[in-house]
Amino acid sequence: MIRARWASLLLLLPTVPASAQVMPWIEANRARILADYVELLTIPNVAGDIPNIRRNADHIVGMMRARGLSPRLLETGDPSAAPAVYGEWLVPGATRTLVLYAHYDGQPVAPEDWKSGPPFTPVLRSERMDKGGEVLELPSESAAIRPEWRLYARSASDDKAGVMAIIAAVDALKAAGKRPSFNLKIFLEGEEEAGSPNLAAMLAKHRELLRSDGWVIFDGPDHPSGAGQVVLGVRGVVGVDLAIYGPVRPLHSGHYGNWAPNPAMMLSRLLASMKDEKGRVAVAGFYDDVVPLTDRERKAVEAVPSVDDRLREDLGLAATEGDGRSLAALIQEPSLNVGGIRSADVGESGRNVIPTIAEARLDLRLVMGNDHVRQVQKLVRHIEGQGYKVLDRAPTMAERRQWPMIATVKAGSGYNAERTSLDAPLATSVIAATRDHGATVILPTMGGSLPLFVLRETLAVPSVGLALANHDNNQHAEDENLRLGHLWRAIDVAAAVMTMR
Amino acid sequence: MIRARWASLLLLLPTVPASAQVMPWIEANRARILADYVELLTIPNVAGDIPNIRRNADHIVGMMRARGLSPRLLETGDPSAAPAVYGEWLVPGATRTLVLYAHYDGQPVAPEDWKSGPPFTPVLRSERMDKGGEVLELPSESAAIRPEWRLYARSASDDKAGVMAIIAAVDALKAAGKRPSFNLKIFLEGEEEAGSPNLAAMLAKHRELLRSDGWVIFDGPDHPSGAGQVVLGVRGVVGVDLAIYGPVRPLHSGHYGNWAPNPAMMLSRLLASMKDEKGRVAVAGFYDDVVPLTDRERKAVEAVPSVDDRLREDLGLAATEGDGRSLAALIQEPSLNVGGIRSADVGESGRNVIPTIAEARLDLRLVMGNDHVRQVQKLVRHIEGQGYKVLDRAPTMAERRQWPMIATVKAGSGYNAERTSLDAPLATSVIAATRDHGATVILPTMGGSLPLFVLRETLAVPSVGLALANHDNNQHAEDENLRLGHLWRAIDVAAAVMTMR
Repeated sequence: MIRARWASLLLLLPTVPASAQVMPWIEANRARILADYVELLTIPNVAGDIPNIRRNADHIVGMMRARGLSPRLLETGDPSAAPAVYGEWLVPGATRTLVLYAHYDGQPVAPEDWKSGPPFTPVLRSERMDKGGEVLELPSESAAIRPEWRLYARSASDDKAGVMAIIAAVDALKAAGKRPSFNLKIFLEGEEEAGSPNLAAMLAKHRELLRSDGWVIFDGPDHPSGAGQVVLGVRGVVGVDLAIYGPVRPLHSGHYGNWAPNPAMMLSRLLASMKDEKGRVAVAGFYDDVVPLTDRERKAVEAVPSVDDRLREDLGLAATEGDGRSLAALIQEPSLNVGGIRSADVGESGRNVIPTIAEARLDLRLVMGNDHVRQVQKLVRHIEGQGYKVLDRAPTMAERRQWPMIATVKAGSGYNAERTSLDAPLATSVIAATRDHGATVILPTMGGSLPLFVLRETLAVPSVGLALANHDNNQHAEDENLRLGHLWRAIDVAAAVMTMR
Repeated sequence: MIRARWASLLLLLPTVPASAQVMPWIEANRARILADYVELLTIPNVAGDIPNIRRNADHIVGMMRARGLSPRLLETGDPSAAPAVYGEWLVPGATRTLVLYAHYDGQPVAPEDWKSGPPFTPVLRSERMDKGGEVLELPSESAAIRPEWRLYARSASDDKAGVMAIIAAVDALKAAGKRPSFNLKIFLEGEEEAGSPNLAAMLAKHRELLRSDGWVIFDGPDHPSGAGQVVLGVRGVVGVDLAIYGPVRPLHSGHYGNWAPNPAMMLSRLLASMKDEKGRVAVAGFYDDVVPLTDRERKAVEAVPSVDDRLREDLGLAATEGDGRSLAALIQEPSLNVGGIRSADVGESGRNVIPTIAEARLDLRLVMGNDHVRQVQKLVRHIEGQGYKVLDRAPTMAERRQWPMIATVKAGSGYNAERTSLDAPLATSVIAATRDHGATVILPTMGGSLPLFVLRETLAVPSVGLALANHDNNQHAEDENLRLGHLWRAIDVAAAVMTMR
């Protein structure tokens, strides 16, 4: 239905403006764009930190107002939910409406792990820090700025880069006297890194305002070859917090060792049971629901340039999982990842104790056919199969005395995978418009996640993603960074999309 | 040789003073003793923190000087080593010399985990905190002090309680006009919790000063039944820091998950391989060197009152390891304990990353026949057997590219187990003297560790331990505490030992 409607619209389109050539303007204005961007990055944006999230939203509203984009905050009505920032550039006579999406919130930070500097004090470096990049002053002249420079800060790449690319592309079009080839709506989410818990409610509430023919998503890293990526789909994701219990108080490992059960050892055994040595998930039925790729999608995956050897070399890996299969092929499958484990302390703070609790952070990635609730259920059944009583909260003392092995499993608000067909007009249009601007890799599904499923479910629109940040950006971790050449390209691509046929 | 010499000394002994009845004096002076003790506990004493360790040593020298114990600091000559505090009370005509030992250093602290208050701000509570114990002012009158009160601070029980018991017992004897039944030497170690890395050098250097017929060790918790314990032996111990490596920088779990090896999962698998489900260590040869208990020792273990059911109830454990065998029996065996694990973050700080490193802290406990170097070698061979290249330092980039699985294994300075025969005169003497003062459980080997092996190796003397702190003291962990009734008993027992036949 979507496809037919889009196709008929294409047939009705008047002649639209040719793609704007905005790179010269971008290059002439690099210093100013960079200064604006640094200002945006200094506002802490950890998802869920609502007071600071609102400071970001207000700042972005100010940036949009200065560009005449009629900005406003969209709310769900729930004061604990982050607002989205909405703006628009309506074009008289336009027969299409598209929404450009980015998100302005970021992943949590562990400041003590940041070597470059505090996560919300942006630092400019002459190249990647671990390759010797030195700290630079913010330049006042555009000519001095080198593409290999890196800007270090939380969300420098994920995903304030998307926000900045869209806003600067508007500047570039205006400077060139151009306008978009469709009614342009901008939707900037404020809680993507928290799993978009309120996105469905937000979209449903503002359904009329957000009416469109499709969404283009600016988020994610480029291909390790350096090519920008057009992404037709994303994996779904659901986070799971897991806790295993030992004695109610920490015990001296000498006086009680090899008598009291050790939750760190129990957690290790449980995690080890979840995957085999080749990295295949051993949870029963984990791969059962998967909808296979079409022939055309499979060929697209095979056409992705192989960078596995280079990546292994760069990352210091002598071998990778999946029995020799390529990265591009493996991310078409559901996964189970251990994002963190913790029990008592190690290193200088390590002590000879039996810990009281051992915790793990897991994330499950989903592909087409998987359902996030069902996937967690499979995991719970697996944990039960290992002998555990599974609870969704900490056990009571009575429960501890009753069950020898207790696991608390708390799933976050997840969402399913989404994929737009390679044959869909929106896909065809974006691929054609961005090919000459550096986005040459076509991925049926990227490894990361975006709540595109929610768009399909709530608004019945297709979506296409553009992944343009440097792949070595430390996204989600300490020392996140953006290569400046990649920022300029992202702006250029955003302008190309805004003026696409 | 030792045994014969000691026995002949016993035959030659003149009539020695009867055991002093000092409890009335202790009870009348509880407020003053408590105030002195709180002052000692406010000085941070994490093993290895040499400036603060020296502040402790100087403070204790002051306490001993006030009691006429001719104190001095013993040094090894290495400025990075902690001094020991030495004092003495020589008795004209005495034919025996004994050394009383305690240690004034403490385990590391993670202040954020302490619920009672900062670890070096002692807090007095009306009972155990998790049973509702409320904060109390330090009392000015002894009569008001209740035995069930608890003093919370690092080393409140382990082992400044030993230091305080010895010093207060000297006060008690002097107040009663008594003197020890032997030349009394006091040796207070300052790096026991660091594994006593310099103890052998210290003892060798001060061999003449420390010449004695035996050592009595004040350290360790009482039996969970509440009875004080005479401990004939201790397990040896060696700490092992283990690190497993993933990619050199943290990776987004979506874009690289199920391709890049995950060190948290690798560590889990490795740890799980080290023990079976019943808690038996699966490292080849782990139990091979063990010297079995004698019949008399085995009977002593069987005579230890069983508190397993009560402990399980108190600790919230539905089951324990060792296939149903008792705590007293299990601590006669070598063990492998996971004291802590850490990779990236969990809970609120958890992120969807593939971590770069996963770390574990292990401790191996040893019994008679084990050797700490050999036991670590067995563990290293086990890790190699799981497919790892084992290094004693972090890998280079070239090594990461060469070996798919790399583990760094760093063993601390460990020591072996030690056991004094139940038939030894020192054992007989201590058992007889302390039986009526609450030390009624006789343990051939306690679960915890003390460097008594070093005493035997360096000075060729036997040793007997007295373990008197409350067993639920959170020793080595957050919220360490001492029950005040146990402090008074420890002083009483120390006085009984000083005047034993």
